[in-house]
Amino acid sequence: MTTLTHLSSLCINGERLWQSLMELARIGGTDKGGVCRLALTDLDRQGRDLVTRWAREAGMSVTVDRIGNVFMRRPGRNNSLPPIMTGSHIDTQPTGGKFDGNYGVLAGLEVVRTLNDHGIETEAPIEVAFWTNEEGSRFVPVMMGSGVFAGAFSLEHAYAATDVDGHTVKAELERIGYIGDEQPGQHPIGAYFETHIEQGPVLEDANVTIGVVPGVLGIRWFDCTVTGMEAHAGPTPMALRRDALQVATLIMQEVVASAGRHGPHGRGTVGMVQVHPNSRNVIPGRVKFSMDVRNISDELVDRQAQEIQDLAARLQAQTGLSIQIETVSSYPAQSFDDTCIQAITRAAQRLGYSHMPVVSGAGHDAVYAAQLAPTGMIFIPCKDGISHNEIEDAQPEHISAGCNVLLQVMLERAGLPSRAAAQ
Amino acid sequence: MTTLTHLSSLCINGERLWQSLMELARIGGTDKGGVCRLALTDLDRQGRDLVTRWAREAGMSVTVDRIGNVFMRRPGRNNSLPPIMTGSHIDTQPTGGKFDGNYGVLAGLEVVRTLNDHGIETEAPIEVAFWTNEEGSRFVPVMMGSGVFAGAFSLEHAYAATDVDGHTVKAELERIGYIGDEQPGQHPIGAYFETHIEQGPVLEDANVTIGVVPGVLGIRWFDCTVTGMEAHAGPTPMALRRDALQVATLIMQEVVASAGRHGPHGRGTVGMVQVHPNSRNVIPGRVKFSMDVRNISDELVDRQAQEIQDLAARLQAQTGLSIQIETVSSYPAQSFDDTCIQAITRAAQRLGYSHMPVVSGAGHDAVYAAQLAPTGMIFIPCKDGISHNEIEDAQPEHISAGCNVLLQVMLERAGLPSRAAAQ
Repeated sequence: MTTLTHLSSLCINGERLWQSLMELARIGGTDKGGVCRLALTDLDRQGRDLVTRWAREAGMSVTVDRIGNVFMRRPGRNNSLPPIMTGSHIDTQPTGGKFDGNYGVLAGLEVVRTLNDHGIETEAPIEVAFWTNEEGSRFVPVMMGSGVFAGAFSLEHAYAATDVDGHTVKAELERIGYIGDEQPGQHPIGAYFETHIEQGPVLEDANVTIGVVPGVLGIRWFDCTVTGMEAHAGPTPMALRRDALQVATLIMQEVVASAGRHGPHGRGTVGMVQVHPNSRNVIPGRVKFSMDVRNISDELVDRQAQEIQDLAARLQAQTGLSIQIETVSSYPAQSFDDTCIQAITRAAQRLGYSHMPVVSGAGHDAVYAAQLAPTGMIFIPCKDGISHNEIEDAQPEHISAGCNVLLQVMLERAGLPSRAAAQ
Repeated sequence: MTTLTHLSSLCINGERLWQSLMELARIGGTDKGGVCRLALTDLDRQGRDLVTRWAREAGMSVTVDRIGNVFMRRPGRNNSLPPIMTGSHIDTQPTGGKFDGNYGVLAGLEVVRTLNDHGIETEAPIEVAFWTNEEGSRFVPVMMGSGVFAGAFSLEHAYAATDVDGHTVKAELERIGYIGDEQPGQHPIGAYFETHIEQGPVLEDANVTIGVVPGVLGIRWFDCTVTGMEAHAGPTPMALRRDALQVATLIMQEVVASAGRHGPHGRGTVGMVQVHPNSRNVIPGRVKFSMDVRNISDELVDRQAQEIQDLAARLQAQTGLSIQIETVSSYPAQSFDDTCIQAITRAAQRLGYSHMPVVSGAGHDAVYAAQLAPTGMIFIPCKDGISHNEIEDAQPEHISAGCNVLLQVMLERAGLPSRAAAQ
């Protein structure tokens, strides 16, 4: 009798998964070891063709929806059940790496290949998806395929997006032959799991193999403009200055400090600064800078933002300088499903992998999937926390470990046929 | 009997001085009410021609040296005495004003015209100078004519300077006909006074008419580069960041704070900031910024610089980020002559003008003159402290007041012929 307990020692073929990652990475491969395979280019088509060929060779059927999302299906015993899905994306940044996205898709394929190797049938069908244009490098918005699927924006909006040369998403989908018939969002999902490199330094720093992702941080982007009075650096005594940069630096420090006060998931970053007139011997009259505020819940994001705004109001009152803060973008926090989180944790434990909770600071297709179905994410370490870079790297043993965890949670969620369980 | 006491109520003709300023300002006058008369251009020649014509009409002789400095001389009774000199410059910034420099030259001319009106002879000759290329907008170094005169750099060095079109100073001096025979520095100076708009906000803020300048601030320019590690703003927890901007802002605040600790003449300015990669959602990996440190003595400048460097060293030790500070330029402080300072103070008092000490935060030809002869400077307020701008402005009554003080100190220093004093 085959039971889930029997299958808890089942392992994927790490070598095969690694070879598939390396083969896919050759399409758009760069001299520096990275990948440039922008969404809906000829290279993207070649990548899509390769992955769907592999899926068909593994006995899967392939469905494409109207935004080009691809669902590769391994039937279960009871095909009226919604499929247990895994996936990610295979488009890359212009100077991207081999693992971002691609790992999540090929880990799903490796799960299927492993089930095939052992002749294991699941109760629910299993699907491996890749979503169109996750990166948003060529067309915005980012996470386009999963966003249309979840109804975050319309198919027409996505179709009309153009690249720098004026090509539309719709025309490029048609050109590469990946515009399907299925209406996005009509595809049922029983549960969704996504494996991904962490794209941050936490796991590597802690020397831990598996990150169990409780959710994706909420993000708010602001622009802050401090307006003082430009004046000559020599003749203007300190007491008579209206130095925009000096006031701005106090706010910049508060962006970081407030994130620290709302740890461990608070983030505060000033990434962009423009000083006017930006001349060595002129007191800055105007400073504009970005503020990127993130936390695990929208409430905590709001608290950080409020503390920054409170300081700005106090500084404006104290100094008389004008301080304007405007919201640029806002992305709500997304918690993942408790049962999925627990399943991932249990699987890592059973397999003997060190594990810890690691929030996702960046967006993933799983954020949109989570709006439709129970969802969980599995992180593995990446070298120096570096991603969106040709030097992005991950260790084969971590690649295998994440895929083994995925295999376990997919099996648990899809279930074994009662016949098999009873044998 | 005419004595200096009799002449203490002698006043210049404010209307005439104002009209001369406005007439000179038409040469290179801009639509916004400013002046663009760059050194050694055709417009500069027209300005030089006008001022020297006025000087000749006032009975003065004109000498030009090899760097184009012009000395306009009113003989005294004893022409073996070195002349008591006043002056400034008539070249302007590209978007300069009517008063910067021009006021100092035409105030000197107005002193001579006033002495002529009243038939007053002085013991020592009086001279009005204008120095070549004070602004340094078209050719560097700045304060070129007075700098060559004082031996700060060689005539050959100045001659070889080129503008953006490749024209040399020497060729342009020849072209406009202002390359003279006299060796720079060979011209004797008994004492030197310069009237100038303050180019800062101190007098206007204090509602005071005359600034008695104790000296010119010493300046040190530094570039500071903080190098951390760029990383994605989302996935990187605060504790694992190496945020170059956050460390840089602490140093930027110390530049200002240390100036405040060494008041009242300390100045500290961060005018220029470059953030790399300057992207909204990337933690800055490198920040480069300028530091402009000034004070009334070189010792105080050194102390400010040392405090900034000490903080940088502590931050480097604490954070592990690399902090490099390099010196870009250094200009020593220059005190003016006590007897000149006292004479200006006494004259302002006698004439009933409010007065206060105001250091010069910017360089002037008087800095180089002070290396050769007893020197003093007289400041008057300018609107909003603004200079090097087409909206630069000054009030006619302040223009007159500064010139009246100049008249008194020139008279006192040049002396009256003993014959007149004995009559």
